[in-house]
Amino acid sequence: MSVFCKMSLENQNISRLMKLAQKFNCFYLSGLKSDECIPFIVEGFQVGLVKPDVIKQLVRFPEVFKVTPVFVELNPAFREYEERTNKVNDVLKQLRCEGKFIALKGWRDECYEVRREFNTESLLRMDRSATCLFGIRNYGVDINGYVKHPNLGLCIWMQQRSATKQTWPGKWDNIISGGLSVGHGILETAHKEAMEEASVPPELMKNLISAGCVSFYFESERGLFPNTEFVYDLELPLDFVPQNQDGEVEKFELLPVTQCVERLFSPDFKTTSIPVILDFLIRHGLVSPENEPYYTRIIELLHVPLQMIYNNHKKKTNKENGQSNFIDT
Amino acid sequence: MSVFCKMSLENQNISRLMKLAQKFNCFYLSGLKSDECIPFIVEGFQVGLVKPDVIKQLVRFPEVFKVTPVFVELNPAFREYEERTNKVNDVLKQLRCEGKFIALKGWRDECYEVRREFNTESLLRMDRSATCLFGIRNYGVDINGYVKHPNLGLCIWMQQRSATKQTWPGKWDNIISGGLSVGHGILETAHKEAMEEASVPPELMKNLISAGCVSFYFESERGLFPNTEFVYDLELPLDFVPQNQDGEVEKFELLPVTQCVERLFSPDFKTTSIPVILDFLIRHGLVSPENEPYYTRIIELLHVPLQMIYNNHKKKTNKENGQSNFIDT
Repeated sequence: MSVFCKMSLENQNISRLMKLAQKFNCFYLSGLKSDECIPFIVEGFQVGLVKPDVIKQLVRFPEVFKVTPVFVELNPAFREYEERTNKVNDVLKQLRCEGKFIALKGWRDECYEVRREFNTESLLRMDRSATCLFGIRNYGVDINGYVKHPNLGLCIWMQQRSATKQTWPGKWDNIISGGLSVGHGILETAHKEAMEEASVPPELMKNLISAGCVSFYFESERGLFPNTEFVYDLELPLDFVPQNQDGEVEKFELLPVTQCVERLFSPDFKTTSIPVILDFLIRHGLVSPENEPYYTRIIELLHVPLQMIYNNHKKKTNKENGQSNFIDT
Repeated sequence: MSVFCKMSLENQNISRLMKLAQKFNCFYLSGLKSDECIPFIVEGFQVGLVKPDVIKQLVRFPEVFKVTPVFVELNPAFREYEERTNKVNDVLKQLRCEGKFIALKGWRDECYEVRREFNTESLLRMDRSATCLFGIRNYGVDINGYVKHPNLGLCIWMQQRSATKQTWPGKWDNIISGGLSVGHGILETAHKEAMEEASVPPELMKNLISAGCVSFYFESERGLFPNTEFVYDLELPLDFVPQNQDGEVEKFELLPVTQCVERLFSPDFKTTSIPVILDFLIRHGLVSPENEPYYTRIIELLHVPLQMIYNNHKKKTNKENGQSNFIDT
């Protein structure tokens, strides 16, 4: 929403890790495309951002969305959580049937909460495939499963995603991760995913350590991804081998950290999982100020201010501008 | 420089740790006081911010500082590092003699580099006591010295600063820290300070692990502090007792983590050292999403985008506005 997050890099001779940080933050570093995206408002609070292609469809549903040149607002006549949820869901189902958006082809029947900020009351829930159309903040849980190998040194377990997954099929990913769906807690999600994805037994999960979170703002052909991942570290014994239970994993591989870094640069690595591994490598001293010239910048780009980025909607909605061409009725 | 970092907290019933994050980020959360502070430009790049009280003095030196309603620029006729350094230093020495600023009473004869960004060439050096008058980014090194105690669990070594220190005399602080002065590397500073402040022998320093950095923007009566601290963890043996060598430490104390958290809330703790301890507590799972409702926000406030915050000076200097009342000639 501000020019201040636009990055000017006169020197394009930047490090490879910095290029990755630019890649998973492509939308943040674009300045949130403030010349074309407009806030999505629910109950007077900005909860997201919408792009011109989405605005173009939302104007077809004036009983649900009030579309102005400078914001889109969910009809404030909907006073309750369930009513808001149902009204939005009806629109999404229609758009899905019409095949308007790639994102909705991945309909999950699994919802995310839509909140003003993380620890505030939910305003509505929305199918997780649709949240990227509205730039709704997403939350997930990620576990770094690592081994202190006597010969290979520090090693990290990676998974290759199943070829049949809705998103990022066949890509390399960290061993355990999952979205924070409606009705599930953070630690609960960590334990659930650890069992489903990698069969980590409860006694090994006692070593799980909460280690922070990463936040970044990515954009793909599907939409906008202001993502926060709650990060956990889990030291695993040498003889543990992960076994997938839910059919969502192609295979697992234990990689020494140096190979792990190389894999991050591969086009076969899921872009939105890079921040979690990069944060692990930084916290454990493998990426350091001594070997990474963009260290401070990369760390800031692993923690972009998503919780505050939507707080200026009042200013925005008062703004005069010439964006009415987006309102293509 | 932007409204987007202004925090609106309708609910003032926030957690104690969140209050601390607001305290050490008081200037960031004020929106960088963009209605009164203006950019400080060197060689066409914004390297800092100046407040009205500083502007009022700088206009007295038109051969060194070009003061306009919307920016202060170091005379671009000074083409070289040494020339810029000397010209600014002459002004600072005069202001120091006149007793204009509290900050300059703590003159150190120790300089910080002034750069566009961390890993770019230095434009000039400036006495570290003066950088807060210009909002120059400061860098430091901090070591978390901890012990895995058989009875007390995880414990952290703290130091009480000497009563004769220029800044924060008598306050509690983390065991080892130091500013990154001209001519010293990051790891070098860590080793130097570990020896001078706490007599950590080289063999124990082999356990030092680089663990990231924290960045925040604090303001005090002395000036502006956009600080980045390079953070290291150091596990110490149970029988190690730190010994000060440079006379800057009153005493040391080994605290179990729960007492450590309580001490952070004390008015006797150095505000700008809180982020380092808080980051340690988060990375080691002691502050977690399960016990801290403002977890995501606090982590974002431990990594505010200082490397990008000054990048919009071109926009700023082109802006028309009515701030000429600051130019009190």
